[in-house]
Amino acid sequence: MTILRQPTGAGVRDAAAKIARILPPTPLFTAEIKGVPIAFKAESLQPVGAFKLRGAWHRLTALDDAARARGVVAFSSGNHAQGIAWAAKRLGIAATIVMPRDAPRVKREATLAMGAEIVDYDRATESRELIAGRLAEARGATLVPSFDDPWIIEGQGSVGVEAVAQMQAAGLGSPVRAIVPCGGGGLASGIALALPGAAITVVEPEGWDDMRRSLEASWIEPVGPNPPPTACDSLMTTRVSTLTFDVLSRRDATGVAVSEAETAAAQRWAAERLRLVIEPGGAVALAAVLAGKVPIEPGTLVILSGGNVDLAGYARAMNAT
Amino acid sequence: MTILRQPTGAGVRDAAAKIARILPPTPLFTAEIKGVPIAFKAESLQPVGAFKLRGAWHRLTALDDAARARGVVAFSSGNHAQGIAWAAKRLGIAATIVMPRDAPRVKREATLAMGAEIVDYDRATESRELIAGRLAEARGATLVPSFDDPWIIEGQGSVGVEAVAQMQAAGLGSPVRAIVPCGGGGLASGIALALPGAAITVVEPEGWDDMRRSLEASWIEPVGPNPPPTACDSLMTTRVSTLTFDVLSRRDATGVAVSEAETAAAQRWAAERLRLVIEPGGAVALAAVLAGKVPIEPGTLVILSGGNVDLAGYARAMNAT
Repeated sequence: MTILRQPTGAGVRDAAAKIARILPPTPLFTAEIKGVPIAFKAESLQPVGAFKLRGAWHRLTALDDAARARGVVAFSSGNHAQGIAWAAKRLGIAATIVMPRDAPRVKREATLAMGAEIVDYDRATESRELIAGRLAEARGATLVPSFDDPWIIEGQGSVGVEAVAQMQAAGLGSPVRAIVPCGGGGLASGIALALPGAAITVVEPEGWDDMRRSLEASWIEPVGPNPPPTACDSLMTTRVSTLTFDVLSRRDATGVAVSEAETAAAQRWAAERLRLVIEPGGAVALAAVLAGKVPIEPGTLVILSGGNVDLAGYARAMNAT
Repeated sequence: MTILRQPTGAGVRDAAAKIARILPPTPLFTAEIKGVPIAFKAESLQPVGAFKLRGAWHRLTALDDAARARGVVAFSSGNHAQGIAWAAKRLGIAATIVMPRDAPRVKREATLAMGAEIVDYDRATESRELIAGRLAEARGATLVPSFDDPWIIEGQGSVGVEAVAQMQAAGLGSPVRAIVPCGGGGLASGIALALPGAAITVVEPEGWDDMRRSLEASWIEPVGPNPPPTACDSLMTTRVSTLTFDVLSRRDATGVAVSEAETAAAQRWAAERLRLVIEPGGAVALAAVLAGKVPIEPGTLVILSGGNVDLAGYARAMNAT
């Protein structure tokens, strides 16, 4: 798609102000790890169970009346779908979501319940970009990417704006480091724009750590062929975007990869210690902290990005020891 | 113990003001059940994972310096223990907790981590009241009951004060009915005092529904001999108190009993729909709603009273279908 502009810190602040008018801040919890108080931003407690409605709201409210009347199209395994469906319903915009057939049932049902239309595709053999692009063209609808879009990035960055205020109110000071789950990098790059003074660490599942490798190589490297299976359905992005990579690269962000076992251990810790249901992809930043893969220091902000789980898989994660 | 006074609505408001100075309100979430928006008060998100620190704070702050210096003693399977330990630590008061050997590990560890001393007893053969009473006498310490105490009842009632303000802010109006998990009735009677205009429904596990039977009989009936096993460790109270019963009886409160399967189904619903980890005893009010055992009407407030789970049992609840 044509990139019209770069996402900016001013855009993030504008998005945060827009979102503050319709949604309360998600709770920020503090818990100690190795004696250090760490801040946890529970985006899992959003009405759709993930941060994605932030970018969706910022993007869809920027459409003019003619564009709104023609509707929007998105492709997503679930959380972006729900974010778009939520914002579209609230604005009276028709939404069509191209979704893989193996998307978690709970995400699919919630998307349908919000009135969106779902078009299925096969993750292994079909291109969701192609399907969504054709649909959008045929209907004159606006294609809303899940991360390769300045409004989406700015909207997700509103997490960081809220977190700063909450950490200061809790006596934790401003964030020194933000540790952020990373699929395409929309959330991480938005938070980087929101927190110009913080170190940014992105976390991905092992084998899907293309942002980590891209940041090390200083150019975009995609996920390799035949990546390993992962429970982190929300982070299975095979290539980051120029927009997200550029923001993170300019900020000297670094990346970390976590194993499936480390992710499940983080889900268990979140259940026992924070009483939060966190989906695998939403738990990778916490996993990196618990595994000792990032420094544990005062002023650390950990993003728990989503909590939409299929119960069978969640029960397995709770049971593994 | 000697009852010095009755709990009052003014006491609840005083407790709520004291608690508001040290803790933010727990989040209130809205979700639809059969098309009706229902308010959920997530006491599971308290720092100790349950509402119990409210009563503990109101009680311990009412002790004079001499009493504080002699310490406090409590008996509890876990959540009251954590509430007392949390408040005592914050006030620099020594706390001793008499706890059953089969209390959930997570509750025991959290109590120890807050610096309280634990004295074990056997739920089947020993009397915790006797052990705690002797300990308190020997040390000159104050015995803090988990529900048979006007300060404890008033403190727990602060849940209701917060919920009214949050429901009104969310456009849900004032509570028409509060549905509350019930062990000894401290939380339910406190909420009844906080919400003079709402119908009060208490919910207990089947076989442990002595408050329900007591309210129907208009006198206190204890749990029968050999009650069935239940996952609701926090609601295994064999006899309610005059204080709690009187408040609920005067308010024409009614009771409902739920099965273990209904409770597990409520835990799953809370995980999928609210992304909250709720312990069995904390999920019984939601279970009653989902099972259709209470009217589903606008203005309904459901208390999710705690989220301290042992992971193995929680995984079983997530898996059962």
